[in-house]
Amino acid sequence: MGQEFLNIMDPGDVKKIIADIPVNKKVEKILLKDCLNRILAEDVYATINLPPFKKTSMDGYAVMAEDTFKASEDNPINLKLMEVVGAGDVPKKKLENRFCTEVSTGAPVPVGTTAVVMVEFTENNNGNILIYESVALGQNIINKGSDVKKGEILLIKNTKITPDKIGVLSAIGMEKVVVYQKPRVGIISTGNEIIKPSEKLTYGKIYDINSMTISSAVKACGCIPVHTDIVKDNYNILRNKINEFNDVDLILTSGGTSAGTGDVLREVLDDLGEVLVHGIAVKPGKPTIIGRLKNNNGSKYLFGLPGNPAAALIAFRVFFAQFLMEMASNTINVSNDNIKKLKLSRRYRPARGRIHYLLVKIEDKMAIPILKDSGAISSLAEADGFIEIPKNIEILEKGDLVQVYPLTDF
Amino acid sequence: MGQEFLNIMDPGDVKKIIADIPVNKKVEKILLKDCLNRILAEDVYATINLPPFKKTSMDGYAVMAEDTFKASEDNPINLKLMEVVGAGDVPKKKLENRFCTEVSTGAPVPVGTTAVVMVEFTENNNGNILIYESVALGQNIINKGSDVKKGEILLIKNTKITPDKIGVLSAIGMEKVVVYQKPRVGIISTGNEIIKPSEKLTYGKIYDINSMTISSAVKACGCIPVHTDIVKDNYNILRNKINEFNDVDLILTSGGTSAGTGDVLREVLDDLGEVLVHGIAVKPGKPTIIGRLKNNNGSKYLFGLPGNPAAALIAFRVFFAQFLMEMASNTINVSNDNIKKLKLSRRYRPARGRIHYLLVKIEDKMAIPILKDSGAISSLAEADGFIEIPKNIEILEKGDLVQVYPLTDF
Repeated sequence: MGQEFLNIMDPGDVKKIIADIPVNKKVEKILLKDCLNRILAEDVYATINLPPFKKTSMDGYAVMAEDTFKASEDNPINLKLMEVVGAGDVPKKKLENRFCTEVSTGAPVPVGTTAVVMVEFTENNNGNILIYESVALGQNIINKGSDVKKGEILLIKNTKITPDKIGVLSAIGMEKVVVYQKPRVGIISTGNEIIKPSEKLTYGKIYDINSMTISSAVKACGCIPVHTDIVKDNYNILRNKINEFNDVDLILTSGGTSAGTGDVLREVLDDLGEVLVHGIAVKPGKPTIIGRLKNNNGSKYLFGLPGNPAAALIAFRVFFAQFLMEMASNTINVSNDNIKKLKLSRRYRPARGRIHYLLVKIEDKMAIPILKDSGAISSLAEADGFIEIPKNIEILEKGDLVQVYPLTDF
Repeated sequence: MGQEFLNIMDPGDVKKIIADIPVNKKVEKILLKDCLNRILAEDVYATINLPPFKKTSMDGYAVMAEDTFKASEDNPINLKLMEVVGAGDVPKKKLENRFCTEVSTGAPVPVGTTAVVMVEFTENNNGNILIYESVALGQNIINKGSDVKKGEILLIKNTKITPDKIGVLSAIGMEKVVVYQKPRVGIISTGNEIIKPSEKLTYGKIYDINSMTISSAVKACGCIPVHTDIVKDNYNILRNKINEFNDVDLILTSGGTSAGTGDVLREVLDDLGEVLVHGIAVKPGKPTIIGRLKNNNGSKYLFGLPGNPAAALIAFRVFFAQFLMEMASNTINVSNDNIKKLKLSRRYRPARGRIHYLLVKIEDKMAIPILKDSGAISSLAEADGFIEIPKNIEILEKGDLVQVYPLTDF
């Protein structure tokens, strides 16, 4: 009746094997408008000075500072207005002593300007500007390149491109940015009984669940699911499909991993490469499989999840989500983020000898165990997360504090 | 020199005004494959039974339970094999007493089946199946509809569609789902000096920053930025542009809000509707404006951010991000999520009489104030977040614990 699990592994050892899988990051150049939350794959240097020209930080009058040194509230200095320069305008006249130019915040100041007097300390008397306060050299002036000098490093490689960093890249007029590619993940659902949602449900068939759950979990990790396919539990079909997926960075399958009659994945992996893990001491998720495929470009990995949807999602979350996050340069820590500490609503006796992942719903700040077969869809409908029960625990008492992990909401 | 701020408001009062703005949610029907993290806009009922047929939960033999009652390890019962039914197959023969049918996990069981004997407790002796253990009525059988009954409620309105919920919807073969629309937000950058990244940078001009930062912040909140445009500081142009944006749920502008020469937004808002807020007792962000536009369909709101990129992002984060999240049915709590408690690296004297938002970078688990003009792009490049300093604080001492809010990384 098929091959039995050769060697049920400790989950900790499996996690070590996964952590040792090399991550090859590729890069791509994309439009700045599309790069929110992507990760810079190279240092970015300033291609221009910021600001690109000498400008005023205030509405007021560009002056030669020394002309104002004797100005006071009682004794204003009178300067002649040469021109008016708004933001975006270009001064036409060089500033001279005893003259001034009206400037708006952000406008370039004329050649010769050494300070700007704020409009609040002036009065316009028919083109004669009365200056009521003296200004120091450089006051209210922002020099060209004083914020950022051309050639200076602006953002370092591996920076997450949040809106503020998008602002920094916009400031130098960048239109395209080099970021890490989103890894491409091939998804295969195996099983003779599963059909696509567009097909008519005939007797003996069920709708495919795992293609959609696994591909959306892959998306949630920052990767791109590609080639989502259903294949029969048949050696040749599965082998051909895996070989067909030659443009992906990783393959995720579900089903076809138990030690039952229809289980061909292990055979295919044995022939196309090697099986690193087959069977983990967890419940659910025991038939999880990890294979390394040999191909012309080195190795490619395949993670085989159980066929049962809840088991597949839990195994994905517990063993593989962090790896996909890392492939995608995603900084989320799957084990630590988003956890709730809650009281258990009732006594619960877990599975013996394996880590037990128990789906729970949350009500009234209590974690309520969902006591259904792990194949139940209704349990997925109700679940708010799951708790991890170590293998040496005989019983959890009502009121015990438990950590509830979100099932797939990273 | 333009209109002064009429009434600088307390930030708490501004937040109340924003909280009172009605949110009109529209719905749309989208493909299941596109609905990750969207929010269900209607209850979903099961359109089929789950499982859709009576099936086995184990690999083994479908039997009439009473045939096995006398079976034991020492005294196996001998049943004749009628046929073999794999997952996805259809049984052709009705089960009879003294007969059995081989079934794989998930396969339908023949009519007449009342239990399944696990393969581990059997032996196949040339078509004679030896049964070594008795099974109870219903054992290892999953009845049609036992998980979910047709017509039963599966998921309630307002459920976030995570991968596990996508699994639930897949199980009934749903292809399209009714979710809340992502709100459409129009973005306007005002200023005579700003140009698009594709344009040549001439003297006096600077590249547009706010269109990109604000539209990506809008995206981060779960909304869709549309019609991103730069407009001159000109009454007619701005007014026409605002009127043109008649298909958006909200308008965000930046610039054109200070009490300076080039400030026309307030005038336009006064004419097209009313100004609810103009001026908030915060630094930076003081010139923030909130207007209600009257149109044929009731009201539309416009949030006017300062022109300075750091000020615009901080004002967006402090006042508007939560509103956009709610429009988008996003459950993130902007004020509580993602905050770090750190020690301040040095003494700092904040602005008086206003809440002061200070950009900081994080190094060695310390919050280091960024002491640059809030117009500096380099400060945005360095910033890891900001701290909020209440208005009655005279001084922050080195080592004081501060809460660092992420600037735009919701």
